[in-house]
Amino acid sequence: MGPNDLKTYLKAKAELVNQALAGYLPEAQPKIVIAMRYSLMAGGKRIRPVLCISTAEALGVDGRITLPAALALEMIHTYSLIHDDLPALDNDQLRRGQPTCHSRFDEPTAILAGDALLTLAFQVLAEAGSDGDAEVWLQVIASIAAAAGFKGMVEGQMRDLSAEGARLDLAALQAMHTLKTGKLLQAAVTCGALIAGAREDQLAAIKAYGHHIGLAFQVADDLLNVTGDPQIMGKAVGTDADREKNTYPALLGLVESRRYANRLVAKALQAIDAFDTKADPLRAIAQYIVDRNR
Amino acid sequence: MGPNDLKTYLKAKAELVNQALAGYLPEAQPKIVIAMRYSLMAGGKRIRPVLCISTAEALGVDGRITLPAALALEMIHTYSLIHDDLPALDNDQLRRGQPTCHSRFDEPTAILAGDALLTLAFQVLAEAGSDGDAEVWLQVIASIAAAAGFKGMVEGQMRDLSAEGARLDLAALQAMHTLKTGKLLQAAVTCGALIAGAREDQLAAIKAYGHHIGLAFQVADDLLNVTGDPQIMGKAVGTDADREKNTYPALLGLVESRRYANRLVAKALQAIDAFDTKADPLRAIAQYIVDRNR
Repeated sequence: MGPNDLKTYLKAKAELVNQALAGYLPEAQPKIVIAMRYSLMAGGKRIRPVLCISTAEALGVDGRITLPAALALEMIHTYSLIHDDLPALDNDQLRRGQPTCHSRFDEPTAILAGDALLTLAFQVLAEAGSDGDAEVWLQVIASIAAAAGFKGMVEGQMRDLSAEGARLDLAALQAMHTLKTGKLLQAAVTCGALIAGAREDQLAAIKAYGHHIGLAFQVADDLLNVTGDPQIMGKAVGTDADREKNTYPALLGLVESRRYANRLVAKALQAIDAFDTKADPLRAIAQYIVDRNR
Repeated sequence: MGPNDLKTYLKAKAELVNQALAGYLPEAQPKIVIAMRYSLMAGGKRIRPVLCISTAEALGVDGRITLPAALALEMIHTYSLIHDDLPALDNDQLRRGQPTCHSRFDEPTAILAGDALLTLAFQVLAEAGSDGDAEVWLQVIASIAAAAGFKGMVEGQMRDLSAEGARLDLAALQAMHTLKTGKLLQAAVTCGALIAGAREDQLAAIKAYGHHIGLAFQVADDLLNVTGDPQIMGKAVGTDADREKNTYPALLGLVESRRYANRLVAKALQAIDAFDTKADPLRAIAQYIVDRNR
């Protein structure tokens, strides 16, 4: 799958996701829904939903059956962005090319819109389960909650905040990113595999793939914060250095960070070596994660 | 069941809940867990968990099978308190007799501890489901999420914030409280009934009971904010009037508010009229809700 094929593929999947997301939040509604919709529909790459869908397809199953999980992952990702952007946390004004939720609305609305998106994610998952295999959907809920909670994303965010100005070594930096970004990305592919009825060996392979692309994703993000174009990215660059954030470029340098990202992609590809051509989108996405410009 | 029996009953149930809650969050841990545990274990009446447990027992089932739902309800209630207390929302310094989460720790930690408790609630529910009837637990998850989300508690909080300084009529005040407090209280008894395998007519009766005690709870809360003893309540009183909050006493006066609360209790009792003596704790709790002093 070449870069142009992947572009078409990602666009089609993102549209599928966007249509389904919009269906959950009516257009004209109270302020809370307007705020939720504003942040949820602000664009973004939809990488977590796409990974979930593509994993199911890699296992020979129609990816649309994973949609509730795909949407829940995007809702949780969006909630985490809204809360991370708050004045008390990263105090960011721009996200996905638009004012952040608290800048566009106000702080209470942003806090509550984040809360409501997190809650809606679990409602969507639970309602999906009542139409499908209930036990599988309970596993999906448990693994997404575990990835997002105090042993996952939230703890990663805590470590990120407390590490500002301090110096982490590579192991601590990796641990932080595995928690903050890696676990939810890994949950995306894990859920796709669970819903598709993966065998144990397939599930293990997919989890390994997810672990490596999760780390690669963050290295690429850090690189983009140094070398990216703010016009294309829709957010400010150079902000990590300003805040003395712990990043791969700060620790390893640009060249070695780039090499490290490529090694992680190679490991991700190796993990799904036994999969047939239906896994080609997963392979292309792994490469895209480190080659993207936003 | 007399007041003293109820006191013993509530104490025993609260202890059961507290022990189980403590089991989910280890004592010595990263800051996020310390903050979660601080707010979760700060006391409180545990009224939602008790309602869930007591409903199952009213239907002749060992209440302990509802524990995961009972705990999840308390985690969600606690998260909502942490976020409501934030400087951007109610800016409260004292809760359950202790400094609020953001006063004791800091604002980022309080935001993230709330997020983590909300997430943990759903993890606990999903993991419980894998040991029990998966379809029932999915229903439990869906109904708790619906009660807590943008068509429930979060929207109630939005309305509460936007109504400060404005004047609501009785219908708007009731709608706000049904959303903010009522739906989660109702979910507590609904989940107890679902897990106990209630028949349709029993479920409807329990939901009606839950609706009325939910409203009564808020009327009593408003009354306590006027007439309560801050030493006993562990939080400031008179704050509603200071903020020109919409309350029942402000709208109906103290005497009529008290009468209204008693009428709601009578309706709650009527709803479960057909239940036998195993529902006596539910009956006593309905009365307690309007007679309590904290």
